[in-house]
Amino acid sequence: MSKGTLLYSQSGGVTAVINATASAVIETARQHRVKVLAARNGIVGALREDLIDTSREPIAAIRALAHTPGGAFGTCRYKLKSLDVDRAKYERLIEVFKAHDVRYFLYNGGNDSADTAHKVSQLAEEFGYELHCIGVPKTVDNDLAVTDTCPGFGSAAKYTAVSLLEASFDVEAMAETSTKVFVYEVMGRHAGWLAAAAGLAGTGNNDAPHLILFPERPFEQAAFLERVADTVSKVGYCVVVVSEGLRLPDGSFVAAAGGKDSFGHSQLGGVGPHIAALVKDELGLKVHWTVPDYLQRSARHLASATDLEQAQAVGRAAVEYALEGRNAVMPVIVRTRDEPYRWKIEPAPLSKIANAEKTMPKGFIRRDGYGITAACRRYLAPLIQGEVPPPYGRDGLPKYVRLQNVPVKRKLPDFQT
Amino acid sequence: MSKGTLLYSQSGGVTAVINATASAVIETARQHRVKVLAARNGIVGALREDLIDTSREPIAAIRALAHTPGGAFGTCRYKLKSLDVDRAKYERLIEVFKAHDVRYFLYNGGNDSADTAHKVSQLAEEFGYELHCIGVPKTVDNDLAVTDTCPGFGSAAKYTAVSLLEASFDVEAMAETSTKVFVYEVMGRHAGWLAAAAGLAGTGNNDAPHLILFPERPFEQAAFLERVADTVSKVGYCVVVVSEGLRLPDGSFVAAAGGKDSFGHSQLGGVGPHIAALVKDELGLKVHWTVPDYLQRSARHLASATDLEQAQAVGRAAVEYALEGRNAVMPVIVRTRDEPYRWKIEPAPLSKIANAEKTMPKGFIRRDGYGITAACRRYLAPLIQGEVPPPYGRDGLPKYVRLQNVPVKRKLPDFQT
Repeated sequence: MSKGTLLYSQSGGVTAVINATASAVIETARQHRVKVLAARNGIVGALREDLIDTSREPIAAIRALAHTPGGAFGTCRYKLKSLDVDRAKYERLIEVFKAHDVRYFLYNGGNDSADTAHKVSQLAEEFGYELHCIGVPKTVDNDLAVTDTCPGFGSAAKYTAVSLLEASFDVEAMAETSTKVFVYEVMGRHAGWLAAAAGLAGTGNNDAPHLILFPERPFEQAAFLERVADTVSKVGYCVVVVSEGLRLPDGSFVAAAGGKDSFGHSQLGGVGPHIAALVKDELGLKVHWTVPDYLQRSARHLASATDLEQAQAVGRAAVEYALEGRNAVMPVIVRTRDEPYRWKIEPAPLSKIANAEKTMPKGFIRRDGYGITAACRRYLAPLIQGEVPPPYGRDGLPKYVRLQNVPVKRKLPDFQT
Repeated sequence: MSKGTLLYSQSGGVTAVINATASAVIETARQHRVKVLAARNGIVGALREDLIDTSREPIAAIRALAHTPGGAFGTCRYKLKSLDVDRAKYERLIEVFKAHDVRYFLYNGGNDSADTAHKVSQLAEEFGYELHCIGVPKTVDNDLAVTDTCPGFGSAAKYTAVSLLEASFDVEAMAETSTKVFVYEVMGRHAGWLAAAAGLAGTGNNDAPHLILFPERPFEQAAFLERVADTVSKVGYCVVVVSEGLRLPDGSFVAAAGGKDSFGHSQLGGVGPHIAALVKDELGLKVHWTVPDYLQRSARHLASATDLEQAQAVGRAAVEYALEGRNAVMPVIVRTRDEPYRWKIEPAPLSKIANAEKTMPKGFIRRDGYGITAACRRYLAPLIQGEVPPPYGRDGLPKYVRLQNVPVKRKLPDFQT
């Protein structure tokens, strides 16, 4: 087939290593002498014909992307609906692709993105436009189907386990006369993968975290408080991990309970401060809490070597698959062995991944609901292994790169997104 | 003079490097063949005669303390009042010291601890008991008088600048269709040192952080909101740093405004979520916020090399001063040059440090109140330089050490703290 242009686009929340995937995509395509454009701010840029010419970036900058967090070309939260409802948008995408001879479309995101890439491939086929759509996995939530894990998750997991370990040393030192309970809120609206990762910080019976509140288990307030009180009296302090997606027995989010403060402003209470307040009010114990929020998914300084390697591997494979003429597939990670950890990359059909959601297997949560099992530990352990710190400057800060992001000249009329 | 025993005690909030000071104290004392006891949970342990025999720890464990966060012997929030009010407690301390032939008392803490060490030295003199009291500086708040900086601060500052930088890459990538304003809460109840450190993350006009809210400047809501809106329209997004000690023009803490949530529980709203709610309510912008809390002072994985070196230097100097026969002094850091950064350790009288508080010089806050000046940058820059990551295990976690903390046999009757 004739070589055309490759369009790469990032989607959804960024990770510590999504730029490493971008770096691998661009470098691999350059080796094949395929031109790479990037959509500015994700699919929104593709719709607006707001494209970036990556060939204007020196190779050193492309390589530095491998140690830079964030999303180098911008990303978006923008979901295309069904082909019926959003047909005009899908058609616009094909128009933009035609205008720039885009023959390879690499969409780097989660399950929504897999769905979009799948639909675009269907429409291209309907229109008889030769296009190779490849989904590229990414998400700190680790909730993509088929793949054993998702690039981005391992680094967020490592950040969570290390931060939890460090904070627990702090709490332990202070507990006699100060903070007795520490609450650590992790991301994960629907699945408790990051909450589980915090569990890697402790191995002994008295090690933190002492209690993990998973979104998969309804929050039973009385039982939880009893466990906190027991832990404090036995260990001297209690470290609690809570997933932002924790739900009440009626299915509603605990975090949605925020009221108004004394100024009449909304309380953007995460679930972390809520659980902390509960412990303080009901048990009268001194509490502290943390909500790392974006810090947990952008902490490139603490990335996992396994995660980085996989983020780059899926980027390279995505380009190879596209150039081999594959379509509507995603390079997924297949685990072949737990210890020593072995894995490989294989193509999987987007149809199996689109809109599916992988939650924690039941066997990964301890029977009492407050911790992880040995099986879970076996699964998670290799994902946080290895350190790959970024280079640091003389100023003591990581040397992260910002691309020039030179725009490609537009050829089409404006389009309202 | 006859060699007696050295008692080392940690006090107040811990830091990423206070154990590095402990490590240096113990190793230096061992070189001089001086026995080192440690008070369990700070001065509380000294009062209770709950002492730890550090000679039971292998040298490898003592050295590993240099890369371990937290407080290895436990610390406390426990302030001794004046000699008049708390005379019984001061006398008890001397009694415990006598019982264990303690001739050197090293108290590792902030201004309260300097005050306590000073008072203990006065009482010992009154009683004719030969005792050498040395204060050893430590605090992430950087608010100790006389010393140029405080061990612990540089690492918290580095954590803050790096985390802010990383999160700003995240926000920048998402801003087009998602989060426009990100609020980052830092510690610092009375002084804006850590808030200022966040300013190191950006150098250009459009770089994050765009607005810093210092505890030294009263919070003017309308003016602040206008700046946020301006920044979002000019830069596309706005990163705000807010100190936990931010105050309203009437002097009250902004953070104290937490109300009740819809369950009737206290809102432990930090000031971060409060500012975020304000932006959301008043400007209708999508916001995210983070409260790193203990993570910022326990992140040994991201410690500053400068800070670590100084933490060890004050530990060594404290022992040398004690053995040289000095009393009621603290080894302080004296800066001799900004660039290249040069410093030395000198003894300073505890009387000059006790209960004093160093706030940010006026010339360190930009005239508009929302950023740092070049002078501030010159002061802060060297403090976050250099990386000294801990060793990591095959499990992907730092190899932090837990001591055995073998107790010393008690010789005195119980004492009620």
